[in-house]
Amino acid sequence: MNDKLMLMIPGPTPVPEQALLALAKHPIGHRSSEFAPIMAECTENLKWLHQTQNDVLMLTASGTGAMEAGIINFLSPADRILVGCNGKFGDRWAEVGEAYGLHVEKVTAEWGKPLDPEQFREKLESDKEKQIKAVVVTHSETSTGVLNDLETINRHVKAHGEALIIVDTVTSMGAVNVPVDEWGLDVVGSGSQKGYMIPPGLGFVSVSAKAWEAYKTAKLPRYYLDLGKYRKDAAKNSTPFTPPVNLIIALQTTLRMMKAEGLENIFARHTRQMNATRAAVKALSLPLFAPDSAASPAITAVAPVQVDAEKIRSILKKKFDIAMAGGQDHLKGKIFRIGHLGFVSDRDILSAIASLEAALIELGYDAFTPGAGVAAAASVFAQR
Amino acid sequence: MNDKLMLMIPGPTPVPEQALLALAKHPIGHRSSEFAPIMAECTENLKWLHQTQNDVLMLTASGTGAMEAGIINFLSPADRILVGCNGKFGDRWAEVGEAYGLHVEKVTAEWGKPLDPEQFREKLESDKEKQIKAVVVTHSETSTGVLNDLETINRHVKAHGEALIIVDTVTSMGAVNVPVDEWGLDVVGSGSQKGYMIPPGLGFVSVSAKAWEAYKTAKLPRYYLDLGKYRKDAAKNSTPFTPPVNLIIALQTTLRMMKAEGLENIFARHTRQMNATRAAVKALSLPLFAPDSAASPAITAVAPVQVDAEKIRSILKKKFDIAMAGGQDHLKGKIFRIGHLGFVSDRDILSAIASLEAALIELGYDAFTPGAGVAAAASVFAQR
Repeated sequence: MNDKLMLMIPGPTPVPEQALLALAKHPIGHRSSEFAPIMAECTENLKWLHQTQNDVLMLTASGTGAMEAGIINFLSPADRILVGCNGKFGDRWAEVGEAYGLHVEKVTAEWGKPLDPEQFREKLESDKEKQIKAVVVTHSETSTGVLNDLETINRHVKAHGEALIIVDTVTSMGAVNVPVDEWGLDVVGSGSQKGYMIPPGLGFVSVSAKAWEAYKTAKLPRYYLDLGKYRKDAAKNSTPFTPPVNLIIALQTTLRMMKAEGLENIFARHTRQMNATRAAVKALSLPLFAPDSAASPAITAVAPVQVDAEKIRSILKKKFDIAMAGGQDHLKGKIFRIGHLGFVSDRDILSAIASLEAALIELGYDAFTPGAGVAAAASVFAQR
Repeated sequence: MNDKLMLMIPGPTPVPEQALLALAKHPIGHRSSEFAPIMAECTENLKWLHQTQNDVLMLTASGTGAMEAGIINFLSPADRILVGCNGKFGDRWAEVGEAYGLHVEKVTAEWGKPLDPEQFREKLESDKEKQIKAVVVTHSETSTGVLNDLETINRHVKAHGEALIIVDTVTSMGAVNVPVDEWGLDVVGSGSQKGYMIPPGLGFVSVSAKAWEAYKTAKLPRYYLDLGKYRKDAAKNSTPFTPPVNLIIALQTTLRMMKAEGLENIFARHTRQMNATRAAVKALSLPLFAPDSAASPAITAVAPVQVDAEKIRSILKKKFDIAMAGGQDHLKGKIFRIGHLGFVSDRDILSAIASLEAALIELGYDAFTPGAGVAAAASVFAQR
C-alpha cells in the first residue's frame, strides 16, 4: 500500500506527527529574534538528554559529519589514537583517522561480538609515555546490533589520564543510558534520524572542558567542521553557518516529548522492546547475531540459516509494508536488522513479529510453532 | 501577527506549500527502492538547472560545507589559489583556503563594488609557470548584493589553462544564468535554502571532468566532504552518508516546479524583480549599495543615510511581518538587504516596497513622494 510504510530500520526512524507538522512550517530566519530562543531551548534540552553541562553543538551534517568533527577538532597529524572496530561504523572512524594522517591503532573484534575492554586496558597501561591522544569507541554498533561496554572501556581511558574518549552514540543516545558527565565522556557524537525522532540532516557533538583544552593545540585542518566556531556562536544561540531551521523546530517538539516521557522511561522502553524482540526471535528458532550480554536496545540483528534474509525482508516490505534493514558489507544477505529505536511503541514490535512470522510461514520455514514469536514478545510486555 | 511572516531575506527563502507538505511526509529509508528513483530524478533535474552534464552531488551540509568540499577535493597543501574577495563570502573562501594551508592570494574590491576581471587577468597571465591551481569566485555576493562578472573572470581562467574555476553560486543558481558547460565551470557550489525554494540543510556541488582529474592527485585531507565518495554512490542513485531524506523529497517537488516555469522565465522573473526593487529604492531617494552595472538579481542592498537601517527593519518586522536582512560584519547597521530570490512573486515586491514606504513615513523620512516607490515598481511590472 502507498504511504503505509512502517520503518523498522535503525534510521531514519519513525517521526511523530507533531514533529512532521513542525517540519512543514514555513522556515524563519536563522538570525532572527524568533529563532534564538528555539536554539536556546533545544541546546538546554540536548544537555538534559546528554546528562551533561558540556557544550552540545548542532551541525548541518549526518552522524558521520558530527563524528568526523568530534575527531578532527582535538588532534594533530600523526597523533596516536585507538579505535574500536567491530562493525561498519567502528571501521569508519578508523578510516576518518587515516584520511587525516593520524596514527590509527585498531582494537578489533569479530562483527557481531563486542569489543574486549581488556585489549584497551593493555594498550593504555603500556603507553607509559602517554602518546595515545584519543580512544574512539562506537557505543551501539548499528551494523551488527552490538552494544559495546563503553563504561568499562572508558574506565581504562580515565586510568590512562591523557587520552580523550570520543564516542559514537549515533544509535545509543536517547535509547541507552549515556551519562556524559558522570562517566566523563569527552566527545559524544550523534545524529537526528535516530533516538531524536526527527528526519536526517542534523548532527550533534558534545564537548568536554578537557577536549576544549586539546582543541587549543590541535592542528588538523577544518573549517566547516570547526567546532570552535559552533561553540562561539552557540553562546549567542546561533550557528556559524545556516542551520537546518525546519529540523531544529521539529527537534524542539521531539525534545519536549522526550522530557515528558523521562529518561528512565525512554531507556526502559528501549530495553523492553529489545527483550521482546529477542525473545520472539528465539521463539522462532532464528539465530540472534549479537549475544544477549552485548545486545543493543536500538537494533536486533538476526542471522537466519535455513531461510534467506533478503527473502524475508522482501516479503515484509511487499506484503506488510514493513522496512527492515539488510546486512552491510560482507553481511549483506546474511543478516537482517530490526530497528526498535526512537518513536516505536510496543504495538509496533508485535506488528513486526507477527509479520515476520507470516513471512517465515510463506517461505516454508517450519522450525517454529506459528504464534510462538508473538507469544514470546507478549509475555515480555505482560511484565510491564 | 503570528505565522504571518514574509521572508524577504537572501535565505532561507519562501517555500511553496507543496514543498512544505512534501517535507512533512514520513521519512523513508535512504537505501530503499523507493528512494533511489527520487535521487535519480533530482540528480537529472539538478543537471538541467546547472545546464551541465557534469556530476551534481548532494551533501548534507550548508552552502559553506558544499563550497569547502568544492575547494578541498581538488587541491594539495601549499597550492597557490586566487580568491575573489569583495564581501563576506569571498572572504570566507579565502579563510577556508588558509585553514587548509593553501597559498591564498586575494583579489579584492571594496564591499559593494564588483571584482575587477582585469586583476585576475594580470595575475593569471603573469603566472607563466602555471602555479595557480584554482580561482575561486563568488558569483552573487550575498553580503552586498553585488553580482561579479563571472563570465569575464572565467574567460581569463580559461586562457590560463591550468587553474580550475571554482564558483560560489549560492545566491545565483536558480536566479541568474549559470551555463556550467558552456562556460566550462569546473566546480560550482550552492545551497538548498536559496533559489531551490526548500529549507536549509542540503548543499550541492557540480564537478567537471577536469576537476575530477585534479581530484586524483589532490592531497588535502577529507572524509565526510570527500566528493569521490559521493560520486561513487551517486552512480547508484545513493549517497555515502545518510542524506536529509525529507529535504530531498521536497527538492523533487520544487525542481519539478522550476522545470515547469522554465529557466528563461525564472531568470527573467528575478531580473524583473531586481529592476522593480531598484527602481523603487531610487524613487524613495535611498542609496543603492551596489551599482546598477553589477547588481545581483537575488538581493538588493540599500544603504540609507538620513534614516536608520535597523529602525527600518524593526518596523517592517513588527508592523508588517516582513523580514529583511541587516548588514553583516562592518556593514551592520549601515545597510539592509532585500531578498528577491526563489519563490517570490511580483506581488511580494509590491508588498515589500509598500511596507518600506510605510516604515519610512513612520520614521519621519520625507525625501520622497509617498507612493513613489510602489509606482516605480509598478511601472517595471507594467512592461511584463
